[in-house]
Amino acid sequence: MSEGLLVPETRVLAIASHVVSGYVGNKIAVFSLQSLGCDVAALNTVQFSNHTGYRQWTGSRVSAQEITDLYEGLKQSYLDDFDMMLSGYVPGAPALEAVGQIGQELKRKAKSKPGSFFWVLDPVMGDNGRLYVASDVVPVYKSLAHHADLILPNQFEAELLSEIPITDMASLGRAVQVMHERYGVPHIVITSVSLPHPDHPVSSLSVVGSTMTSDRRARAFKIVFPAIDCYFSGTGDMFAALMSVRMREAVHDRGGGLMEREAWLSDDSVDALDLPLARAAERVLASMHEVLTKTAERMQETVKKAQVEEEAAAAAAAAAGADGVVDGEEAAKAREKRMHLVRSKAAELRLVRHLDSLRFPKVEFRATRL
Amino acid sequence: MSEGLLVPETRVLAIASHVVSGYVGNKIAVFSLQSLGCDVAALNTVQFSNHTGYRQWTGSRVSAQEITDLYEGLKQSYLDDFDMMLSGYVPGAPALEAVGQIGQELKRKAKSKPGSFFWVLDPVMGDNGRLYVASDVVPVYKSLAHHADLILPNQFEAELLSEIPITDMASLGRAVQVMHERYGVPHIVITSVSLPHPDHPVSSLSVVGSTMTSDRRARAFKIVFPAIDCYFSGTGDMFAALMSVRMREAVHDRGGGLMEREAWLSDDSVDALDLPLARAAERVLASMHEVLTKTAERMQETVKKAQVEEEAAAAAAAAAGADGVVDGEEAAKAREKRMHLVRSKAAELRLVRHLDSLRFPKVEFRATRL
Repeated sequence: MSEGLLVPETRVLAIASHVVSGYVGNKIAVFSLQSLGCDVAALNTVQFSNHTGYRQWTGSRVSAQEITDLYEGLKQSYLDDFDMMLSGYVPGAPALEAVGQIGQELKRKAKSKPGSFFWVLDPVMGDNGRLYVASDVVPVYKSLAHHADLILPNQFEAELLSEIPITDMASLGRAVQVMHERYGVPHIVITSVSLPHPDHPVSSLSVVGSTMTSDRRARAFKIVFPAIDCYFSGTGDMFAALMSVRMREAVHDRGGGLMEREAWLSDDSVDALDLPLARAAERVLASMHEVLTKTAERMQETVKKAQVEEEAAAAAAAAAGADGVVDGEEAAKAREKRMHLVRSKAAELRLVRHLDSLRFPKVEFRATRL
Repeated sequence: MSEGLLVPETRVLAIASHVVSGYVGNKIAVFSLQSLGCDVAALNTVQFSNHTGYRQWTGSRVSAQEITDLYEGLKQSYLDDFDMMLSGYVPGAPALEAVGQIGQELKRKAKSKPGSFFWVLDPVMGDNGRLYVASDVVPVYKSLAHHADLILPNQFEAELLSEIPITDMASLGRAVQVMHERYGVPHIVITSVSLPHPDHPVSSLSVVGSTMTSDRRARAFKIVFPAIDCYFSGTGDMFAALMSVRMREAVHDRGGGLMEREAWLSDDSVDALDLPLARAAERVLASMHEVLTKTAERMQETVKKAQVEEEAAAAAAAAAGADGVVDGEEAAKAREKRMHLVRSKAAELRLVRHLDSLRFPKVEFRATRL
């Protein structure tokens, strides 16, 4: 393909939240997809000033009806000719059901042309043992998992979907097997797995992926990579977007008619380590690691500078005798709030400054056996 | 700058419409800005399924109050540290006034640091002699033009702002002079000028730009380029976005403290043809011409294919005797509607497939004297 284009013509429907400032949801997914050459239809489920990790924001949600209306608007003008759909955060069960209807309709429409439509479902429900959506959202995701081609739960979401407590790599493997069996979902990637293992370096994370065989047996691999000691928002959304396009790229590169097969399902003879899913995940992790490393470096500088300024201001105020005991507490609280906001902004992923890391990352971390 | 970055760190507030599918308003502006390295805060004034040129769409507008709320949300988290603002289509006078308040507030805040904030205002009012906004929007744009650093009217909008009928290059020059004088707006680019001139090839268009001197005299240049015989939507929005970042790039490249001067206003001794505005416009037109040429090529193929299919279907229907006279008329009407939708989609600018044209265009058309 000319101009270093990474995928064949690809039209993606991306449904997720929009933030004015910063990089989560569709704000990060759309640019990630576009910069790799995809024509993206971006259906925004909310418009917030910033992500909720700042602990304060303004803006509003889009209703289930409005999501349906926007899709009907696309349909009536023949703009629903999607090759892929990526669905991320959707606020509340009714809106999620509306998104599910869209995904299922696009699947039905593509039925006569196997492989012509591929749905990547990111079941955004929670993290680290904590649900951050309403509990009625969970059964909706379970019902949608039956229709998706690739799901991208994190470790906690994989527990919710499989109903298996994940405590080590063995139970994680069982959870993958259960999800393939129960939902018939062909491809699974579990993101940001944090489980001890004798083979893994101390501060490492892994992703675990699997493409099922024709009889729904898991073919699992893992990719271990160094953790970066910093909390970033939007990494899951960036991962999902890049995974969508890299999966299509890997299937396209593989050739042999794989792209014309239902759900791009590799022959049973293909080993876990040779799956297109593994190639895709390797490239995605390479991009992620480069962008996160560069973001963390800059973040440290920014936060350190802000801290010095805050301390100088506090010292000046104390010297001026402006703070009584109560005021001092309040001032400290205000300082902590300001620092939280500075850290949140500094942690916004710097992908627009590192386009080459998105497009042409250097693959360092390879898939290995689970 | 590393990685072929084109501008120094640049944080832009982009306020315009959002379409799910296709490329107009913020949908094209945000990607254009991001792909050149800008950190963009995208405040969407509408979310429509597609642009209105399709003649049918769904979706909704954002109220003036919501625009203000979103901006307040940014402010409370210190996310209003913008280097630039780009304002495009805003639905209705109250919403436009809300956007104007934001622009003026950001200008005021930057007053003590000349050159630290630059407002690009695209006064979207109409085209080809036809107003396509409510008439009460016109006086609002006139009041905002006093605060903008760069305005980008098309020929018709320049007539509205200057109140001078533009019939030839001489009257266009007078309109530019009047806009500098009346509004004190430092930089002006009039886009898609279609005026006969002995020097111009028959099917050419031009843009006319000017940066005023310290006593508000115009320094005007023109760039003539071949017209592409096709109606595209979103070209104005793409032009405005690229112009914003290329202007910053050109001023940055010029050095000599220009970026620390109020409105990046070049010395009176700088000739029209040596203005950073001229360098910026040359690069923008180069990108535009490449993307439009490539879009038009692909569009022809797509439309031709659809036409053949429509004709075959119509012939088959006629042969089957399915069409009576009345039905025949209705069928023809339905065909025409379908073809309009096909043409509209095929005319969507293909910029995601031509990232190199955005980032590294080959400049062919140079600024000359007006």
